[in-house]
Order: sequence, then C-alpha cells, then structure tokens
Amino acid sequence: MGLQIPELKTGESIDRLGYHGLRIIQNPAKFKFTMDAFLLAGFIEPKPTHKIIDLGSGGGVLPLLIAGQREIAAVLGIEIQPELVEMSRRSATLNGLADIITFEMVDLRNLSSSFMANSFDYVITNPPFFELNRGVISENSGLASAKFEINCTLEDVAKSAARCVKADGKVAIIYPTERLDELMVTFQKYHLTPKRICFIHSKNNAKSNLVLMEAKPGAKKGLSVLPPITIYATDGTYTRIMERIFHGENYFEILYNTL
Amino acid sequence: MGLQIPELKTGESIDRLGYHGLRIIQNPAKFKFTMDAFLLAGFIEPKPTHKIIDLGSGGGVLPLLIAGQREIAAVLGIEIQPELVEMSRRSATLNGLADIITFEMVDLRNLSSSFMANSFDYVITNPPFFELNRGVISENSGLASAKFEINCTLEDVAKSAARCVKADGKVAIIYPTERLDELMVTFQKYHLTPKRICFIHSKNNAKSNLVLMEAKPGAKKGLSVLPPITIYATDGTYTRIMERIFHGENYFEILYNTL
Repeated sequence: MGLQIPELKTGESIDRLGYHGLRIIQNPAKFKFTMDAFLLAGFIEPKPTHKIIDLGSGGGVLPLLIAGQREIAAVLGIEIQPELVEMSRRSATLNGLADIITFEMVDLRNLSSSFMANSFDYVITNPPFFELNRGVISENSGLASAKFEINCTLEDVAKSAARCVKADGKVAIIYPTERLDELMVTFQKYHLTPKRICFIHSKNNAKSNLVLMEAKPGAKKGLSVLPPITIYATDGTYTRIMERIFHGENYFEILYNTL
Repeated sequence: MGLQIPELKTGESIDRLGYHGLRIIQNPAKFKFTMDAFLLAGFIEPKPTHKIIDLGSGGGVLPLLIAGQREIAAVLGIEIQPELVEMSRRSATLNGLADIITFEMVDLRNLSSSFMANSFDYVITNPPFFELNRGVISENSGLASAKFEINCTLEDVAKSAARCVKADGKVAIIYPTERLDELMVTFQKYHLTPKRICFIHSKNNAKSNLVLMEAKPGAKKGLSVLPPITIYATDGTYTRIMERIFHGENYFEILYNTL
C-alpha cells in the first residue's frame, strides 16, 4: 500500500515523530504531542496479537507511536473532539498505518458500544492531568481539554478503562506524581490493581513530576516500583535512557539488558 | 548525669548504634535492629520542641537514634512485648537518655490513655511488614511479631497513628514498597494524606524494596515523590548518601545541599 500525502488544513503542519520515519499532522492551536507519549509508549509491552485502546487519543500520537514501532494487531483511539479524530485519521493514512489504527469519536464517559466491553489486551491513556480548579485554563478549548478535566475526570477514565480491558489485560497510564494517591485509590475503586510503577524525574535531584503505572483488573496485590527514569543529565542534555526511549526502545528491555 | 552500665541478661549484648557513640542492648533471639531504623530516622525532620511517639518500638532503636542524634523534647516508644520494653528502658539509661525517652507496654490496638490522643507532633512507625499468610513465620515469637502482622495489622497502625497525631502533626512510616497501594488506601481511610515519599532501592537497577512515607492528618492532596535512595553502589559498598544517613544526617539536608 503506497503512502498518501493528505491535504493539510489551515494551521496544520507535518512533523517528524521520533526516529522511525513516523510523521504526524499537528496544529499548535489544537494539539501538539509531548514527551509523555514516548514515555508511555516505552513503558508498555504489547504482544503482536494484542488489541489496544487509547482513551482520549488527542491528535493520535500514542496509536501512531505504538503501531509505528511495534508489531501489534490493532489499536483504536477514541477521542471526543471530532476535528482531532479527523486529523488523527489523516496521520494514520500518512504513515500507511490506517489498516492497523482506527480512530472513533467517542465520549469515554459513555462507552455504549458493546464491542468495547472487555475487548482490549491493553488500555492506555494519557488523560487530562489537572482538576478544573487548578491554574488558568487555556482559552483554546482543544488544548484545554487535553490538560484539564473538562471532558473527563480521573474517575471517568478509571471506570471506562475497567470496562474496556479484558479480564487478563492491562491498563497503563501516565499521570502527575502529585496525584499518585488519588490514582491508586480511584483505580482500586474500579478493581484495577497497580502492579508496576515507574517514576519520572526531570533531573536526578528533582522530585518526580510524572508517574507511569500499569494495573491489572482483579489481580492480587503486589506492586513493583521500578528504577526511576531521569530525563535530563546534569549538563542539560537528555540522559542515555531517555534517548533510547525516544528511539522507540522499551523501558524494560533497556532496564534488564544494560542498566 | 553519669551513665550507668546496666546489668545484661542471658543472650544480651551491648552493640554500637551508628557513629554518635550510641549503644543499644540487643538479644538476637528477641530483637536486632536493621537499616530500616536509620532510614526512617534520617527521613523525619523533628523540631527541638517536638514530642514523638514510636508505635511498636521493639528494642527501642528508633527512639534511641532520634534522641541521640537530634534535639527533641520527648520521645515515647510503645511496645506490646514486656521484655522488649524493659530492655529498651535499660538502653535509654545506658545512653543517659532516660529523661527524654520513655517506653511503655501498650497494645497499639487499644490506645485507651486519653493523654495519647492528638498529643504528638510526629508519629513514627516501623511496623510488621508481612501479612500472616506470607512466608514462614519464625518460631521465635518476639522476632515473628516484629515481621508479621501477629499483634497488629497495617490498619491497626494507621488507626492508632491517626488517633495519636496532633492536628498539625505528621505521621512517618517505613513499609515494603510492594504494599504501597494498601498503605495509601489505608491511610486515606483514616484521613492521613500522603505528602512526601522516598523510595529505597538496594541497587540502582533494582526495583524498590522499601518506601518512606510522611502523611498529614486532613491535609489537602498533593504528593511529593523525592529522589530515591540507593543503598549499595555497583561495587557493593554503601553509597555516599547511605553512609551519610548512617552518620545521622537528615535526608533532606543531604538532598538540598549536595546532591
């Protein structure tokens, strides 16, 4: 299947995504990907047979990264903003990945399609980080709803993740560390047992700003906190581990082989 | 006040405790201190006016370390095993600290003395780590009750900590990382909000085995996960930070001044 170059709309550009030849359509007024997507993509360990769902897929960066760097069966991104769903679809086509990646306009608070219940081996999500009472909300509604709990709260995300995931599946999330206790309490409410955690520190003497967590539905307790990931070395460049994550390597491979 | 050399009972010895001239009476059949006490003592930041309670004080190592290394008003250790209470009292006398440190035989499940309610600036605890269904329980009841939830569960500890701590006080605990989610959920049940966490890793490529957590009663949410402490360097010697903690330095001073 040949790659098609899709038409770009006003404000959009085609940007490089990582080091595997992937590209993504972005619009700074609507969606710009962040490092968070690389961190979460490097944390999960999907198998070639796995079906994955991304809850709140924004501009489609997580599905693109995963399908572009790994062998997987299918990844579905659901997103409430129709213009982002449409833009994501064009990015999938741009990369020749439209047969593996699907995007649907779905409100995750309202997962009504029965095909979504207990259907996914991996549920992944990079949800809004901040409560509505925190900070100044961007006037731009697209950007705001990616950062603030306008369209969904942590509880909505946990509830819908618990609904989507297969009984032997996994749920992986990236979230602000300062809300870790809420994350654990909310996941437990929906019987998602935290099994693996990795903290992200911007520098090695800084407190953690982000946390990667993987949970399993109904699993017995027993949590592993892995060695943390530090983003920047003391000279301000990316650490070696962060460079490898940007290159699409899996954190666990890095950890067990070379750390 | 001159130091008194107390009489030793069968099986007891006087051992060095850290690098400040402290000594402790131990009996390998009843109680031996571990590195955990140094980690917790180095994590808390008591003020000279503070009254501290240690829930489940065992052989008295935490009160001795804190009163021996810092200026504090008073520290009370409560312990259910009478022979350990008696041995701890002799250690306090041995170090000339009996005017600051008190030990009482109290079952923490049953804190009935009204003087203990909302009375302490710091509640500290190094409670039993393992549920009764985990592993082989030592035949020695003294050692077993320090490791296994024979005399108290995590919930008993959280409940009694919430009862003892002043409204503007703090609760600090060292606990197995694999039970972090239970720790957070249980503390939240008793309105103890986690505010600071530090993970302990035996080596820098190993998962965390222990976690230090400080919580405040009724505090608003917002958690800091500090840079982790690694115990051993790659050559098997203690790391520089661990050496400093053994020397009685506070983790936060180390962190903010020199890391």
